[in-house]
Amino acid sequence: MDATYIGAVDIGGTKIAAIVAGPQGPLARVTEPTIKSGPLEALPNQVIGMMGAACRQAGVDPASVTTAGIASCGPFVHEQGFLGLSTPNLCGGHTAAVDLPNDWDVIPVERVLRERFNHIVIQNDCVAALAAERTFGALQGERDCVYATWSTGIGFGLCVDGHILHGKHGNAGHAGHMLMSERQDALCGCGNRGDLEGLISGRNIGRRMHITTAELFRAARSGDARAREIAVEAAQWFGRALYNLTATLDTRAFAVGGSVWLNHGEWLAPIVLEEIERRLPALTSGITVVTAALGNLVADIGALSLIIPDEWIAGWRVTQPWQKLAG
Amino acid sequence: MDATYIGAVDIGGTKIAAIVAGPQGPLARVTEPTIKSGPLEALPNQVIGMMGAACRQAGVDPASVTTAGIASCGPFVHEQGFLGLSTPNLCGGHTAAVDLPNDWDVIPVERVLRERFNHIVIQNDCVAALAAERTFGALQGERDCVYATWSTGIGFGLCVDGHILHGKHGNAGHAGHMLMSERQDALCGCGNRGDLEGLISGRNIGRRMHITTAELFRAARSGDARAREIAVEAAQWFGRALYNLTATLDTRAFAVGGSVWLNHGEWLAPIVLEEIERRLPALTSGITVVTAALGNLVADIGALSLIIPDEWIAGWRVTQPWQKLAG
Repeated sequence: MDATYIGAVDIGGTKIAAIVAGPQGPLARVTEPTIKSGPLEALPNQVIGMMGAACRQAGVDPASVTTAGIASCGPFVHEQGFLGLSTPNLCGGHTAAVDLPNDWDVIPVERVLRERFNHIVIQNDCVAALAAERTFGALQGERDCVYATWSTGIGFGLCVDGHILHGKHGNAGHAGHMLMSERQDALCGCGNRGDLEGLISGRNIGRRMHITTAELFRAARSGDARAREIAVEAAQWFGRALYNLTATLDTRAFAVGGSVWLNHGEWLAPIVLEEIERRLPALTSGITVVTAALGNLVADIGALSLIIPDEWIAGWRVTQPWQKLAG
Repeated sequence: MDATYIGAVDIGGTKIAAIVAGPQGPLARVTEPTIKSGPLEALPNQVIGMMGAACRQAGVDPASVTTAGIASCGPFVHEQGFLGLSTPNLCGGHTAAVDLPNDWDVIPVERVLRERFNHIVIQNDCVAALAAERTFGALQGERDCVYATWSTGIGFGLCVDGHILHGKHGNAGHAGHMLMSERQDALCGCGNRGDLEGLISGRNIGRRMHITTAELFRAARSGDARAREIAVEAAQWFGRALYNLTATLDTRAFAVGGSVWLNHGEWLAPIVLEEIERRLPALTSGITVVTAALGNLVADIGALSLIIPDEWIAGWRVTQPWQKLAG
């Protein structure tokens, strides 16, 4: 690849970030709330517009950005050979989705963006984050590793034998929807009862005390017994989920991000680790759980990591040019 | 590979099978109860002796068999660079194992067999079974597929993006030890409570009525309401496990073997499938669950599939020469 500039986009349920980067690092980053109304192509057209804005901000000719990495919320479906988004909180056309001002069923992200870019790579945001941690973060050199996000939702990027898992439609890693309990009150947005997100996503964790997740952890850390019990139990569920992935994939190392972990990981980690290490040693001995090195930028750097030219990587590892995006 | 003859071994907790095969198919197969006493090398030495016996039976010079595929029960550990077996029901040296007439901790299968064979491939028996189904059975041409065995234990061989998963010690697929319930009475041999094996392995499924699994299914199929309820619930748990793997790996096709499924799969399949299909369609639509085409021979053919020369495969697909082993 001989690109002088590359583009990267992080499509989330609430906001989109677009970055243009050169060999020395990211040059500009623009963000906008994710569009949720208008024609079926509104969202990918927003992405194209934002990439133009990022280029103008960086003083780069948009026509010179022909390669883009896309980190996106999922799940994905394939439609006429192109990958589209079938995301419940973006697509009003889903019967389960309410209050969305559109009737979208599948958002044609790949079809529209392929008209704009010569080369694009689209991956689930956790898969992109995994690529970021393996390229620049806490999972460098790890062949059997997992990136996990514990935030409003819970998702994973999976790597086994040095191979990043995609699956039939690029949806590998949706283990936040893994069933772990028979609790009928642990209702997930996908309709499951007792899956990991239903039990402990940032959307659900405080619900049992009718407070927000931030309030719950604040109460737990200041000694409230009931809040502490709920927080400890949440950490145990998360640990059981990491153990389940270990039993399934024979993982060696986990890097964890997302707002719940980035704010409380230091406090949660020992509980999570104990829940893994108490299981069959042949499967669980030597496993590490660390905080994602790229923090809040992991999906942005992930989108870049999907398409970064090999010859840029060594320099970026030294200069860490993404740091200036944090401001 | 220009081998005229190849060897294959299936190491199970109760018996070992050794096969010698030529370009036209298997020539001889010998079986013995798995040795559980004697020096640490007793089991791999038994394998070498059995391969000699199979060669004599086939009229083949044992020295000409220099390549072997090994399908083995796990879990595996690495010791001094070699893969060893750390199998609870073979190793008396494990604190959890009782009544075993040995003090083995790790059985040095690879170290000993490498002295006998120039080229060996050792895989978990479910991984070998997956190779068999992908090469000769129900999963030919499938890139995103899983082999599952539902028998005394429950195990999986996993394939994502055309890549068979191994993991850090070759233990990927031990998802029979995936935690799925908080039921304290569902005790697994590994010490877990509420994992898939604890809930519904052939060892545990009849326990709730104090009968064998065979008796339970017989009662269920002849209309006993309580037995039927337990059997249906077991199928639902199995379906939830296949769904969990789908959410994790974005799988398209499952092939299922093992004694429980081979005897009752026709009756269980619709219940299993319904438990998958009622979940988020973006993840679960179009998934197939079929019976493993190689039936009881899947691990034997699996061990062969690990090392079969490419140029033999097309012929074996036509003549199915493993059929004569079934007798």
